[in-house]
Amino acid sequence: MARELIISLDAMGGDNAPDIVIEGANIARERYPNLHFLIYGNKTEIAPLISKYPLLADCHELRHTEKTISAGDKPGQALRRGRDSSMGLALQSVNDGEACAAVSAGNTGALMAMAKFMLRTMPGIDRPALASLLPTSRGECVALDLGANVECTEKNLVQFAVMGAAFARTVLGLKKPTVGLLNVGVEELKGNDVVKKADRILRETSLPMEFVGFTEGDGLAGGEVDVVVTDGFTGNVALKTTEGTARMISNLLSDALRDSIWSKIGYLFVRSSLKGLKDHLDPNNHNGAVFMGLSGIVVKSHGSASGAGFASAIGVAADMSANDLFGKIAADLKSFEEEQTGVSQEKAS
Amino acid sequence: MARELIISLDAMGGDNAPDIVIEGANIARERYPNLHFLIYGNKTEIAPLISKYPLLADCHELRHTEKTISAGDKPGQALRRGRDSSMGLALQSVNDGEACAAVSAGNTGALMAMAKFMLRTMPGIDRPALASLLPTSRGECVALDLGANVECTEKNLVQFAVMGAAFARTVLGLKKPTVGLLNVGVEELKGNDVVKKADRILRETSLPMEFVGFTEGDGLAGGEVDVVVTDGFTGNVALKTTEGTARMISNLLSDALRDSIWSKIGYLFVRSSLKGLKDHLDPNNHNGAVFMGLSGIVVKSHGSASGAGFASAIGVAADMSANDLFGKIAADLKSFEEEQTGVSQEKAS
Repeated sequence: MARELIISLDAMGGDNAPDIVIEGANIARERYPNLHFLIYGNKTEIAPLISKYPLLADCHELRHTEKTISAGDKPGQALRRGRDSSMGLALQSVNDGEACAAVSAGNTGALMAMAKFMLRTMPGIDRPALASLLPTSRGECVALDLGANVECTEKNLVQFAVMGAAFARTVLGLKKPTVGLLNVGVEELKGNDVVKKADRILRETSLPMEFVGFTEGDGLAGGEVDVVVTDGFTGNVALKTTEGTARMISNLLSDALRDSIWSKIGYLFVRSSLKGLKDHLDPNNHNGAVFMGLSGIVVKSHGSASGAGFASAIGVAADMSANDLFGKIAADLKSFEEEQTGVSQEKAS
Repeated sequence: MARELIISLDAMGGDNAPDIVIEGANIARERYPNLHFLIYGNKTEIAPLISKYPLLADCHELRHTEKTISAGDKPGQALRRGRDSSMGLALQSVNDGEACAAVSAGNTGALMAMAKFMLRTMPGIDRPALASLLPTSRGECVALDLGANVECTEKNLVQFAVMGAAFARTVLGLKKPTVGLLNVGVEELKGNDVVKKADRILRETSLPMEFVGFTEGDGLAGGEVDVVVTDGFTGNVALKTTEGTARMISNLLSDALRDSIWSKIGYLFVRSSLKGLKDHLDPNNHNGAVFMGLSGIVVKSHGSASGAGFASAIGVAADMSANDLFGKIAADLKSFEEEQTGVSQEKAS
């Protein structure tokens, strides 16, 4: 039997907490029978919810706190006053080694600030990045940074590429994922200085990834590469543009399928075929953004995720813990640094 | 009768030139009976195409050149050797005042470089921007910069907002369009320095636009604002991400509608309802990106546009010429400068 994985949950974060957190824990436990949960939040609200799911009875510990971080709290406020909130305590349990990962659907800025402060960055990483799986026409790709750093240097982008490739190997099960840098064109002379410099560095590495150079915005959904690397400003805009476009088309599609008696009849025939498409695009099925580069696994769920969505986020945390994401990143960073030292020694001699 | 509008066409640019250029001219002429074309390119290839469309017989002048700019030519090469190419001559006719606008489906970088060099920027504009209409759930919005400037200052963004608002008033017929700055969040503290500074300047203007502050990536397709302003790097990625996502969903949708006998039957019923959706998303129907801020109207068509797509691009050129886009931009820039001078005098006194 697989070893037990202990995951801490911020039960009070997100639009529909604590309901979807507990529902999500139950769904995740059905999929991963080796999960155990440390659930942080208000006992009076949470205990009755847990009692609805017999499966959760023997695999959780409920730890009471009255304090919560709200959606409006600024990162600084969370840092000063949030240590004993449900979010702060969930992170603390990872820092203490009690849990192997924490999952929260709460305030992103607060989670990022507290996670950075409490868990620190890994050796060899200057700045953590927010990474997630996105749907493509071929399946899924890993994209990062999705909003942690609005400004990045070429060194940041290179570190993101190393972490993203390790993510793809861990969660998508790829041996040598293809990696592309998001840019406004694929030719070497295109783009700003930062992407051009990062491109030159990545071309020379021999890490377990296949660096393909630049990829454009349509390469994301096109599934051109397994890992798309970009700064947090561009990545956040690209992520939300993808979500917005998918939502627009899905709304226009449901309107179109209701606009006449003929289309309503037709819908009865096509409904089951459209379900697969709907599932593939449903953000809940790709839910779970990871703060990469910290000395602990922290997964951020969409604030408006459903129970099934929160279960996906727990799944990401479980896969990363079980497949030793950290070991992979640490080893790759070490090889990368040795390579770079070799390169600079060669240049010096 | 509306006054005659003379538009120059680069008949040799794009993947399917000159065929789609001539086909597009014919479609555009059906819609705008006051159009007259100066058609630049290889006579031997173009004359037989023109003879297929009786409508074009009396409203064109075909001007021969053997020289073309190819997709692989660098901007510098085009500048040095492209003045007497079909693209260069089409731009020259705008500069000479013979034509009121030029339309090309050729090499974007070359077109931008030559247009900037030959037509110069308008007084009050530091850098031209690439603007286009994008489909939203409410209709269309104007987005700029879509790739002309990979790095921008707050001053550039403010000028883009002024030009974008004039575009929306001219082509979308809005009196006071809403304008948003693309950012990673809507709160004032979000984003990089450039967008924060541009936000502060735009909040104080009293131009014919309603500045709403920041908008996120999903606001684009969501139709939150009439004009979305961003730097050319982010804008290009957002544009291509939108196109890529739409293409992915459209491919998955056609697969879904063919995957069983039931869905094939259903498709017969929903087909006509889906046509409206398909038309709304078809890039050919939103074709025609404008180089804003030059002392002349230059419209860039997608390289792979169909004849109908090229006709849309000619339509954008015609609307801008007929509705005096330049007069509007120039007047707005003047008011804006007077406002700014007033502000700095107030601060100084």
